[in-house]
Order: sequence, then structure tokens, then C-alpha cells
Amino acid sequence: MLDSPETPLKALIRNRRPGHSLDAPFYVSPEIFAADMELIFGRHWIYVGVEPDVPEPGDAMTVDIGRYSVIVVRDDDMGIQAFHNVCRHRGARILHDEKTTVGNIVCRYHAWTYDLSGALIHAEHMGADFDRTCHGLKRVHVRSLQGLIFLCLAEEPPEDFDEMAREMGPYIAPHDIANTKIAFESDIIEQGNWKLAMENNRECYHCAGNHPELTVPLFAYGFGFAPDEMDEQDRAQAERYACLVRDSHADWEGSGLPSREIERLDSRITGFRTERLPLDGAGEAHTLDTKRASRKLLGQFTRANHGALSFWTQPNSWHHFMSDHIVTFCVMPVDAGTTRVRTKWLVHKDAVEGVDYDLANLTEVWSATNAQDSALVGYAQQGARSPAYEPGRYSPHTEFLVEKFCRWYVGRMAAHLGR
Amino acid sequence: MLDSPETPLKALIRNRRPGHSLDAPFYVSPEIFAADMELIFGRHWIYVGVEPDVPEPGDAMTVDIGRYSVIVVRDDDMGIQAFHNVCRHRGARILHDEKTTVGNIVCRYHAWTYDLSGALIHAEHMGADFDRTCHGLKRVHVRSLQGLIFLCLAEEPPEDFDEMAREMGPYIAPHDIANTKIAFESDIIEQGNWKLAMENNRECYHCAGNHPELTVPLFAYGFGFAPDEMDEQDRAQAERYACLVRDSHADWEGSGLPSREIERLDSRITGFRTERLPLDGAGEAHTLDTKRASRKLLGQFTRANHGALSFWTQPNSWHHFMSDHIVTFCVMPVDAGTTRVRTKWLVHKDAVEGVDYDLANLTEVWSATNAQDSALVGYAQQGARSPAYEPGRYSPHTEFLVEKFCRWYVGRMAAHLGR
Amino acid sequence: MLDSPETPLKALIRNRRPGHSLDAPFYVSPEIFAADMELIFGRHWIYVGVEPDVPEPGDAMTVDIGRYSVIVVRDDDMGIQAFHNVCRHRGARILHDEKTTVGNIVCRYHAWTYDLSGALIHAEHMGADFDRTCHGLKRVHVRSLQGLIFLCLAEEPPEDFDEMAREMGPYIAPHDIANTKIAFESDIIEQGNWKLAMENNRECYHCAGNHPELTVPLFAYGFGFAPDEMDEQDRAQAERYACLVRDSHADWEGSGLPSREIERLDSRITGFRTERLPLDGAGEAHTLDTKRASRKLLGQFTRANHGALSFWTQPNSWHHFMSDHIVTFCVMPVDAGTTRVRTKWLVHKDAVEGVDYDLANLTEVWSATNAQDSALVGYAQQGARSPAYEPGRYSPHTEFLVEKFCRWYVGRMAAHLGR
Repeated sequence: MLDSPETPLKALIRNRRPGHSLDAPFYVSPEIFAADMELIFGRHWIYVGVEPDVPEPGDAMTVDIGRYSVIVVRDDDMGIQAFHNVCRHRGARILHDEKTTVGNIVCRYHAWTYDLSGALIHAEHMGADFDRTCHGLKRVHVRSLQGLIFLCLAEEPPEDFDEMAREMGPYIAPHDIANTKIAFESDIIEQGNWKLAMENNRECYHCAGNHPELTVPLFAYGFGFAPDEMDEQDRAQAERYACLVRDSHADWEGSGLPSREIERLDSRITGFRTERLPLDGAGEAHTLDTKRASRKLLGQFTRANHGALSFWTQPNSWHHFMSDHIVTFCVMPVDAGTTRVRTKWLVHKDAVEGVDYDLANLTEVWSATNAQDSALVGYAQQGARSPAYEPGRYSPHTEFLVEKFCRWYVGRMAAHLGR
Repeated sequence: MLDSPETPLKALIRNRRPGHSLDAPFYVSPEIFAADMELIFGRHWIYVGVEPDVPEPGDAMTVDIGRYSVIVVRDDDMGIQAFHNVCRHRGARILHDEKTTVGNIVCRYHAWTYDLSGALIHAEHMGADFDRTCHGLKRVHVRSLQGLIFLCLAEEPPEDFDEMAREMGPYIAPHDIANTKIAFESDIIEQGNWKLAMENNRECYHCAGNHPELTVPLFAYGFGFAPDEMDEQDRAQAERYACLVRDSHADWEGSGLPSREIERLDSRITGFRTERLPLDGAGEAHTLDTKRASRKLLGQFTRANHGALSFWTQPNSWHHFMSDHIVTFCVMPVDAGTTRVRTKWLVHKDAVEGVDYDLANLTEVWSATNAQDSALVGYAQQGARSPAYEPGRYSPHTEFLVEKFCRWYVGRMAAHLGR
Repeated sequence: MLDSPETPLKALIRNRRPGHSLDAPFYVSPEIFAADMELIFGRHWIYVGVEPDVPEPGDAMTVDIGRYSVIVVRDDDMGIQAFHNVCRHRGARILHDEKTTVGNIVCRYHAWTYDLSGALIHAEHMGADFDRTCHGLKRVHVRSLQGLIFLCLAEEPPEDFDEMAREMGPYIAPHDIANTKIAFESDIIEQGNWKLAMENNRECYHCAGNHPELTVPLFAYGFGFAPDEMDEQDRAQAERYACLVRDSHADWEGSGLPSREIERLDSRITGFRTERLPLDGAGEAHTLDTKRASRKLLGQFTRANHGALSFWTQPNSWHHFMSDHIVTFCVMPVDAGTTRVRTKWLVHKDAVEGVDYDLANLTEVWSATNAQDSALVGYAQQGARSPAYEPGRYSPHTEFLVEKFCRWYVGRMAAHLGR
């Protein structure tokens, strides 16, 4: 078009080479980072935490998404509300702690006071003509998917969240998040772009060489492989693994536990994927002895060897549900070269630390794995900074989900940038 | 105009909504910060310190205003001189300490030497055709208002400084800064834009909820209030306070101590305001027992219960003068989101610490208040970073001086940007 | 030209005032820093270290030049190879330590493996159609000048390196770098632009006032001086020094040790200068007692009083060769206001610390000098940040080599920017 010249970002989006890592500016440019925050994190459903973060009325957490700060609060009717964490008087940030419990939401600056529905109920000295009803906290869209909390900062959030919730509900419901508690929570600041943190999550090609702990419960043949590089023995083992998956799915589905893959990573706005897979050894959990970490099983589970249900969402989360505990990951961009990965380990709310579970045993596999991944993401970022970097080819056998992440990202950017 | 398209800054200035906090870019944008430094701090009279900072010939202090560094030095005739702290040879910074005493002003790099009038008196190896008289230090305009030192970086400084000096002279002179010393000095780096630090200073709406120490000597009714929100009792107390002010003013003026309000905050280039007000309790000083902090009274004072004379200047200072001590504040922008607040406590030059005054008692109220204000300014800055921030309404009863600060700022920017 | 409007950088280059320090943006602007990295450090031969950094096959060092990272490795045939430190798979940085020893070059992320010639010899799961021969490490041009390693990041490096090597070979060869080892190595991060670090190196006008240690072995009359400022006594001493230089050159040249000045600082792309000069006192080395620091002399030297051979290169190095040890300096820009100066002290490879040399004695003069220079470079940077800075005049008698550095820099920028 004569009157809409193509921007550098649009050109990069249009010229993205399928099957290859992204051009360097997607990882290092502050301008593209700003576009990511506006178009991806500003207009999609972003996973931010779990209902056990705010179990009781008045429990609140603050969630920072780029320059936004959001208050997520449990109201008196046990609903979840979300508001911009900005006072309507002179704009001060209202809540400061990551977690707190409040009666009302009170700005410390001039004591403007909002109730848990966001209504302004007190503001002194403003004069007779001041209308409090026009000065309530601004709302943010919030949804809970069986206890997983998602926010959307856009005025009109993507409508397909409900469809995802409908499909995913039966998978997640048996793990009964409502009756869990957060046993442990960790933040890692990775020295890499958020997309590198996501790409790293979307493949296990790097697992064999980097994750000695995670590869104990995980089957190597679940990571993908190039069939033409296999010898007879490899082939036999891969076949045995395929049979195990087939049998387990039949068993789980038969007993009412949905397990088969749903793959919507790049075919919808709110992209996701799920699958329940068997684990190695005792087959119970992501632990070094492959057994459950907590004696109190979740929901109605009576035995623990159900493998792990995994749930991946675009743009920023992944989750592993086991019979005894859940590990949930939230990726939050900080700047073009820095990303926060927040991990929460959930156990039954009645499980007692030291009695029902040992914290070190519960967290050992993913604490180690996170640290290893953080180093790898840092190496990838360092390399992308070099002008000698060029997009490299993804393995079609082990990195196809990385490709799906990139395809979703590029597609969503293109949709919002227009042509 | 066809040939002068409106810049984003001009549009923001033109569209500023009266009675409301500024648009977010005024608090967070590096571009507007740069414009502030050029148009506000580069072209107005900036308060930087007091004559007791450089009491004797050769005493010098360095003052950084944005990217500028200035040497303020007491010359041999007891005059105050100010020069750019940049060697005329290869541009090295010359003086490095905040306070020092020098014979001549010598650049350490190649030993170029300037006398206290800024003349280059020594420069080796420059050859026969080199003219030292063309290479003196560049001057900066400097003025002392009864001992308060102001600089102006512009070539032609605002002419109305003299008018302010004439009006303010009789108010400040009785406190005899020339015969004081700096008992204590503190720097706070606030995590907020300089305008938020200034706005915070221009209202006490936030005092009741945040300043337990400052509200001991200050009367709550001096902060402003909405008359329509008061009950009978409030009204009676407010009236008693108004009478006290009226009586005190009559008393002070009668005994030759000017005290009535002069309000020129947004009606002139060098905006200022002053007023002497009674204090609560013993009525002597900003201390927790409301009594004088130093036994040696300033100037010709023979009793201490003269309340406090306050003096506010645009764009960057405020001062409280009591019979026994003075507290003076200088706000200096660091970057869009960071501001230095420098506070100095002055007592009589012959007062002896531990004998005539106790340092903790002298500084307690304002040290606590500064720390509390610093937190509030940080909250305001955090809120302004959110895209959900929108300018909010100032209380017409308690924030009218904040409005006057904004109006002055917007008016000065508009004047320098042209239409 | 109507269709190629002049950029601000081009205008600054064109308007540079000869004989004066550069305009402030050359020292403080991030944009000009980026241009420096592309046009100067991206297209010229950059000194990065010495062959003793990688003495044995498999020894590798990583060298960061701006956003580039380069692997310099000794191959199995004792050659020096250089590659971009970026994996051809997904671009991760491969080697992380500054010095390491490897069998092959292995990326930790997905175990892609390259041999010491850069060829990709292993990459799993990439499928049958993947061609390893197209995915070797990208080469960087590397040359050794008698053991001094230079890199060039450009595809077509300046051709005049060979000419410099031919001219400099006979000067440096007697010091036999191949048979030295690195006794000590220091990094200083200077708070100034890389050009200020270079300018500081190119004059000794500042030495008398700032380098009490360095001026012990160096003759003051070697620094340059204004003849018209000298008295009878000065003139007599200067003449004696000139005779000493003349006699020493005759002596050295007679015994096959090239010593006369070659000056190509601003007359070629790969600018350089060399000269051997006598030292004061015992005349042996840059030590506080002016005697050799190491008992084991280099190469075929049988006595130590050969003064010091100095070698300066544009844009980023200088070196002092003595009979017993070598001190070599590499300047590497970090950002517009930050520069790393890396210094290495080389002694005979068989010299034993504590027996043949004392480390403190070896490093004392230049450790002190580096620290002093670092402060001066910082002062120059601070001054250049002030809007009051203006380019000042270089001394024609003591700063003519600074002028040659600036002339080379401005000329190279102009050549690459085009007109």
C-alpha cells in the first residue's frame, strides 16, 4: 500500500523462514520486545498463578505483566477478581507485596479506599461535586481453568478461552487444584528472551545432555528421534515405548482419566496442547526415585502410577499434573534479554511437610532442571547477540513443537500488525 | 503551521487537563525528561545549596545538574563564583569531590591551572601562539538570596530573580544564614520522577496517614480540608486555627517579622511562595517535642516560639526557617524515574554538637518524613508506569498547590517550546 | 546530493576541527559507539592477545569484540584458527570460559560437535536430508604478527596487514614471543570511551603530573616539549637526550637490532608506529629500579640494556618489548562510556616465578600506571558529558600523536561512511 509502508518488524514477520529459529532481532531488539508485550502479552490469555495463591476472601496477589501491575483478589463470594493496581486519584501503585490479605483495597498515599469489587468507597476532601462511582478500580479480565488463573489485559479478550476450558476441564479436574496448597515456589531470572525460555521448554532434544535428574522419570523415547539414525536395538526400544503409551492410554481412558493428546498449539488464538504420558521406573512422579513425593494423593486418586498429564499453553506456561503433586510454570518477560520463570509445587492441602512429603525430594528434579535450562537459555541469548548469528534449522523429529511455538507467535504478531 | 508540525510533547502540553495529575509520559518518558533538563533545569534559577557550603576563600563545591557539572567557589573577596567544571584543554572534569578547598583550580590531567576568577594562569607546552586569555573557565550565573545559592545555566537567566530577592529578603534575613553552619546533610535517591517529588511536597493531604512525626509540630488544619465534609467540632477547631494564624501574623508583623503569605507560584517565571505559620505544642520547631533543637538561636532572635517560615521555589526547592535552625531541601533530577533529594540542617555557627544541640533530635522529624515521602513517590512512579494509569483529579481543597506546580511547569514548557 | 542527505555523524566527521579534541558525541553518543563498532572494530585488524594465550593444540580462548564473540584456538598442526562462537544449530554461544582446552568444539545445548578446523562432525536427529558440510563454524580472519594475534571481523580484511608484518617483523622477532609465557594478566574497566583510552595512551604530557612510577624508567624529554618555553638548562638536557637516542640507535642498528622510528599512524588503513628508545637509570626495563624484572632474557639477548621497543597500532593496542619481558595492552570498547583495558606481562617460558622474577616487581610500574590512566580517562569522559564541553586544542609539541589517532579515526570513518 502506498500509504502503509512496511515496518521492519512486519518485514521480519513476513520473511520468517519456517523450520528455523527466529531472526536475531526477535530475541534481542527492545522494539520487538515492546511489540511482544503489547501484541502478545497485552492481547492474549496469560497464565499467572493458581487459585491456592488466594485461597480465602481478602487474599490478594499482585501480578506484574510488563509495565502493568494487576491485583488478583478473592472476593467475599469466593470469586476471583482482577483490577489494575493503580489508584484512581493520582495513580499510585496500591498493593506492593506479592501476596497479602486485605479487608478493603486501600491506597497508602491519600487513603482512597476500594472494596473487593473495586468500588471506591472512601476518598476525603474531594468536594461535593466529586462522583465516587466514576472512580472505581479498572477491571482486568480474569478466568480460572480448573484452578489455573489466566488474565487478559485487552478490552476484548480472545473468545476461544471457553473452548480450551471445555476441552481441558476433564483432563485437569481429577487433580482437584481447589484442594491443593502451594508447598514451594521459586523464581528464576533467566538471562534470555522469553521466547528462548519457551522454545527451550518445547523440546527435549537437549534433555539427554543437560538434565540428568529429569531424564530419570522421563522416557528418552518420548523426546522424539530421527528414525533413520536408529540401529536395530534403538528401534526395538522405541517400539516398546510406543506400545506402553498405547496400553496406558487405553487403561487410563477406560478408567475415566482422559489422556490422549490434544494438539492446538498453532491452530487457534489461545493455543495449547495436552497429553498424559507414562513415566519410567515406578511411574508415579517427577522425582529421583520416580515414586510419589507426597503420601496424600490428590482428588479421588487411590493409586499413584498414572504417569504425568502435561498441559502447555501459548504464550507462557506449562504444567505437569501427577497423582500426588502438580508443578506449574509461568514465564514472564522482564526485558528483551531477561525473563522470570516462576515455578510452583502444589500438594494436597492437608499434606503436612515433613510428614506427608519432604520438600527437597518434592522439588529436586525441577529445581535442578530449571537451573540447567536457565544456563542454556542464557547461552542461546548470548549467541543471538552476535551479528554472526543466523537462524538455524530445527530438527523435524525433536523440535517440531518449537516450530509450532514460533509459528503461533509469528501468526499472532502478523494478525495484530495487520498486513 | 504547515512548516512546524506539532510534536508529541507540544500536544501533551496543550492537552493537559487542569486540576488533574499529568499524563504518564511526563513522569516516565526519557524524552520528556531530556526536555525538562533543557527547558526547566537549563533555563531557570535552580537552588543548589547555601553559603555555609563554601564559607572561606578557596572553599568549593561541585554541583551536578543533569549532565552539567558546576564548580561553586568562594573567591578571595568573599564573593561566590560559579564555573563549568570542564577543563578548556581536552575537557576533563576538574574537581571531583562534592566539597573541597583549593588555592587555584587545577585540572589533574595536564595541570592546566585557573585562578578563583576562572582565568587560565598556567598551561605548559601549548606553543607561542596560544592565547591563555581565550581559555578561561566558562562562567555560570550564580546568585545568593540571603545565603541561599541559586544557579542558572542559561546564557540569559530570568530577570525576575531580583524581584523575588527583594520580596523575600525581609522574611529570610532575620534567620541570618551567613552565621550558620551545616550541622547535617542527607541525600535520598527517590525512585520517582522529580515532578512527583515536587508534587508530593506541595500538599499535606498525605500527611495524616503517612507522617506521624511531622504531624506533631504541624497543625492538621493547615493542610487544607473540604468544608462540606466537616462536622460541628471540625468546624470549630478549624476556626480556632484560623484565629491563631491571624493573631500570630499580627504579633509577628508588629514586631517586625514579616509573616503573611506571598504567593507567586504560577504567576511569574521564578515562581515562589512564602508564609510564616504557627506550630503546635511549644510552637518552636520541627521537633518531636515541638521545642527548639538548638539552644543557640539564630540572628537576633531572643525567643524561639516564632513558628516556622516556609519558602517554596519552582522548580526544585523548599525551606523551613525556625528561630534555632533551618531545614533546606534541594530536588535534583537523576533520570526520568530517579531523583535526588538533598536535605541540610543549619544551626548557629557557634552551636556545639552535643552541647547546644543533639543531632538525632535536630534531624528526627525530617529524616523520618523524607523516608516516608520517598516511599510514596516511588509508589506514584510505579503506578504511572502502568498503561492503565490515567490523570486523576486533584482535591481542590488540599491539592491546589500541586495544581499550581503543574500549571507553572506546563506554562514554562509551553513558553520555551513555542507554539 | 538530493537523494543522500548528510547524516549527523557524517556532518560531525566532516566538520572535525584539526588539532582539537573530538566533538562530544564521539565520546558519549550510543549511536556513534555503534558506528565505531561496525566501521572501526568490525572492519580493521584488532589486536586481541598473544600466541602464548593458546600454546598447545586444543587450547582455546574466547574474545568478545562488541556483540561478537570469537573462538581463537590452536589446531593440531599448531596453527591458529578463529571462528564465530555461535552454534550453527540454534545459535547458542558455544565456549564460555576466557581460556579452556578442548578436544572438539562442542555446543552444550544439543551436543553439536565441531572439530578444530570448524567442521561439523556430529549433529543428532537432524534427518537424512541434513547436510553437515554446510553447517561448519563461521570463520574469522586471524593473523599472527610474530606472536601478536590480530582478528578482522570483515569479510574482506584490509590488505596492508602483510606490509605491517613485513616492516615490524625484524623489530619484534628478537623478543621471541613464541618462547614466552603469560606471567600475569589484568583487566581494568575504564569509565570512558575507548577513544579517550587511546588518546590517553598517545601522549605523555600527562605523565609528569600523574605517573610517578612510569617516569622513573622513562626520560621526560622523550615526551615532547615546547622549545620556546625552555631555559638554558632545559635546552642542554634535551640536547643530551637527543644525542643519547642517536647514539643508541646507531649502536642497536649496528648490532642488528632495528630501532629507528617507523611512523604509519595515519597514512595507512592498518596504522602503526614503532621506535626503540633508551631508558633511564640502568636502562633495562619498565621497573622501579630500571633493571630487568626477569633473570631469563628473551630470545638471543645476552644483555638487558636495550631500552624498550614500543609498538602502537590503530585502533586498539600498544606494546613494550624489553630484553627480559614484554608488556602488551589491548583496548576493547564495552559501551560508549566504558572500556576494558587488558594488560599481559610476558616473560621467558622457562622463567620461574619467585626464582627468576618477582611478580610484584614485574607488574608494579604498569599496574600503577594503568590505575592512574583509568582515573584520567574517567575524568575526561565526565567532562565530555557536560553540554559545556567544547573541543580543545592539542599541544603541537606533546599531543601530535593524539592528533594522528584522531585523524586516522576520522579518516577511516569517512572512508566507510562514504561521502
